[in-house]
Amino acid sequence: MTLDAVLSRIDDDMPKTLDRLMELLRIPSISTDPAYKADCHSAAEWLVADLAALGVKAEARPTPGHPMVVGHVGEGAPHLLFYGHYDVQPVDPLELWERDPFDPAIEDTETGPVLRGRGTSDDKGQLMTFVEACRAWKAVHGSWPCKITFLFEGEEESGSPSLVPFLKDNADELSAPDLALICDTGLFDHDTPAITTMLRGLLGEEVTITGPKMDLHSGMYGGAAINPIRVLSRIIASLHDDTGRITVPGFYDGVPELSDDLRAQWDGLGFDADGFLGDVGLSEPAGEAGRTALEMVWARPTCEVNGIVGGYTGEGFKTVLPSKASAKISFRLVGTQDPLAIRESFRTMVRAALPPDCEVSFKDHGAGPASVMSTDDPAFEKARLALSDEWPKPAAFIGSGGSIPIAGYFKDILGLDSMLIGFGKDDDLIHSPNEKYDVRSFQKGIRSWARVLDALVK
Amino acid sequence: MTLDAVLSRIDDDMPKTLDRLMELLRIPSISTDPAYKADCHSAAEWLVADLAALGVKAEARPTPGHPMVVGHVGEGAPHLLFYGHYDVQPVDPLELWERDPFDPAIEDTETGPVLRGRGTSDDKGQLMTFVEACRAWKAVHGSWPCKITFLFEGEEESGSPSLVPFLKDNADELSAPDLALICDTGLFDHDTPAITTMLRGLLGEEVTITGPKMDLHSGMYGGAAINPIRVLSRIIASLHDDTGRITVPGFYDGVPELSDDLRAQWDGLGFDADGFLGDVGLSEPAGEAGRTALEMVWARPTCEVNGIVGGYTGEGFKTVLPSKASAKISFRLVGTQDPLAIRESFRTMVRAALPPDCEVSFKDHGAGPASVMSTDDPAFEKARLALSDEWPKPAAFIGSGGSIPIAGYFKDILGLDSMLIGFGKDDDLIHSPNEKYDVRSFQKGIRSWARVLDALVK
Repeated sequence: MTLDAVLSRIDDDMPKTLDRLMELLRIPSISTDPAYKADCHSAAEWLVADLAALGVKAEARPTPGHPMVVGHVGEGAPHLLFYGHYDVQPVDPLELWERDPFDPAIEDTETGPVLRGRGTSDDKGQLMTFVEACRAWKAVHGSWPCKITFLFEGEEESGSPSLVPFLKDNADELSAPDLALICDTGLFDHDTPAITTMLRGLLGEEVTITGPKMDLHSGMYGGAAINPIRVLSRIIASLHDDTGRITVPGFYDGVPELSDDLRAQWDGLGFDADGFLGDVGLSEPAGEAGRTALEMVWARPTCEVNGIVGGYTGEGFKTVLPSKASAKISFRLVGTQDPLAIRESFRTMVRAALPPDCEVSFKDHGAGPASVMSTDDPAFEKARLALSDEWPKPAAFIGSGGSIPIAGYFKDILGLDSMLIGFGKDDDLIHSPNEKYDVRSFQKGIRSWARVLDALVK
Repeated sequence: MTLDAVLSRIDDDMPKTLDRLMELLRIPSISTDPAYKADCHSAAEWLVADLAALGVKAEARPTPGHPMVVGHVGEGAPHLLFYGHYDVQPVDPLELWERDPFDPAIEDTETGPVLRGRGTSDDKGQLMTFVEACRAWKAVHGSWPCKITFLFEGEEESGSPSLVPFLKDNADELSAPDLALICDTGLFDHDTPAITTMLRGLLGEEVTITGPKMDLHSGMYGGAAINPIRVLSRIIASLHDDTGRITVPGFYDGVPELSDDLRAQWDGLGFDADGFLGDVGLSEPAGEAGRTALEMVWARPTCEVNGIVGGYTGEGFKTVLPSKASAKISFRLVGTQDPLAIRESFRTMVRAALPPDCEVSFKDHGAGPASVMSTDDPAFEKARLALSDEWPKPAAFIGSGGSIPIAGYFKDILGLDSMLIGFGKDDDLIHSPNEKYDVRSFQKGIRSWARVLDALVK
């Protein structure tokens, strides 16, 4: 009955547990913006101190970007590696936040209390579910369930530029575990926990088109001078055909059709496509013709424009014919699509579309393939049952539209399989203003990890 | 020989004349940005004080926007109305300026000294050429050449929203003059002065497309949720066909072909299309197939995107699927194109192109038709000869790609013909970083007005 004791301890400790998370949430560790470099360091150091207080031998290891937190503790099988990230997304547009994103608070909502603030769900709250489960376990048992390695990254929201070199440089140390646990995914729905076994890959590209060598007056030059916003818009418009298919040559190489088995399993989940779209003010799936919304998000590749800017964008009007226009474009990848081959094909396509007098430059914002986990390891079934014990409905193996390239890196560089368990919800507004994390997700998440640890060491 | 005395006085007074212009240039009277409202008032008051010092009965009259400066002085025929504008364009991107745009200075360049700063050419420097010519005239003669009405606007760079109501409300007072003089145009080239007799009209529209009701995570929703940047890009791409023609239905109604006479006259000007484009880093005219660069700019209508913004545009990358995207789009109009009919047709076209779940909103940024001046008034030939006396080459009647709707308003509301004379150059970088005005343009511009006044009162 020690599991029950751990679960009780978790429930009893919630006030202090929430205070600890609040401390971490107050650190504005926005990794993509150089202005927050010191804050990223502070978040790493906060985690080192918290792990050290639990007896973990932890340190913040330098990288060319933000530090990697590595810690080792405990003994016995299985040796688990737990991964989370302490960096967060930018907060703009700040005016849409109903509170300071880095002054988090618990707010009552119709569906229960939530933690409101940047990073509550993605990923500080999730990361702390595992740390707090360990804290409760150690308090009750006086020891650790097994040998555990902690790895906390600070660049997940900015393309993880230091991750692969770090894993390669520390492969001996980090390949020792038997299984990686990654806590950056979600529940299937409010009552159904999930182990995510399919993740889309991500390719990020920034495209800048230059026409005239300076901004021009659209009266003096309009008509005779090429307009880079028009050129960029034409290129973006050409990336999809009228059925929503992506036109980059070779793009669909390696995109599998869903197996009948998996399609049947997903159909059985009772996914509420109308609710999923309705929650964000939409009514029709906007992707490839003939696909369901769930398929579009979990199993189909995409090409999206994440940002575009050119010319005058302030108040009022300015009749400028700009020199430059640029767009941030990302591709979500599935199956065995090759991100680097797609990058080359995309760049070739853009270059071929340039009219006279225009130039293009590209900026690489990361490239990671899709991940498809093998669920053959008995740990998956043990974890599925443990999660099913905690939540109202049985746990499901699901897909995810998001991209967590870390699972692919763990497999390729360290030879480690990953199990992705998380407690986020679709309405958590991650990457958006007013991000939140249900207090229920946090508390039951901690309890879930205690159950999973208990199951894995039995 | 009093004209010679006036011209000498102008040359002798140049140091003080430049100091006065510098004072006006230091006032950051950016009309489109509400943050500079007080500065626009300051610029108006500066002009009132300067006119008053010359004995003009001047005042800054309130409007719903920035004030209108009106002054009356002198007696005798012809009664002239002189128009200029004291507001300036925004200065972004500020990092491209080589000096503070509102800390002007005289810089030496390969082609002679220039005044560098926002508004030097457009339009404070030009406006002051006339005021300084009057100052010198009065100093030499002790009186004014004729009855003169001054009208200085503070909203020319932001669509002149208050102008038409003001002209209507003050039509009795302002329709009394015989001819309007407008100083907001350019030389034909370094040595050839010009009277501009054709001006393009301007229609400004801001289009905002809304898809999801909030910013989304492009992993969670990408594929299933409509992306407003993609929708906007498709709409922009559809505004021109592959030959560069604008596809808005009815757009070409009222667009005349050049008469053989005018084409021959323009051919005779020896316009250097390669140099015009080469100066801004381009080599090929980018407009409608089969048109010359000069025709594209002086005689053909356009549709340009002056600004576009949506999603994440900061440093790094953010995988957002944005709720909104918007573009500022302007049309330059010629002949008898009807701006209001084109606005309606454009909006109808955009609405028809919206996919499900998208909404569009439009913001009106002004609409003015093209102006074609009648040169029958003998004042045109008198002025042409006077300008020819000042400059190395004879003055030409030319077109202009820019839009100065004031000439149309003077005709329609006040019944006044306008004569457009200015001394700007194509390389003045108006509306761009590092705007300049040749000191030669300023000095010979003042001398030109003295000669024109002398010719008109003879």
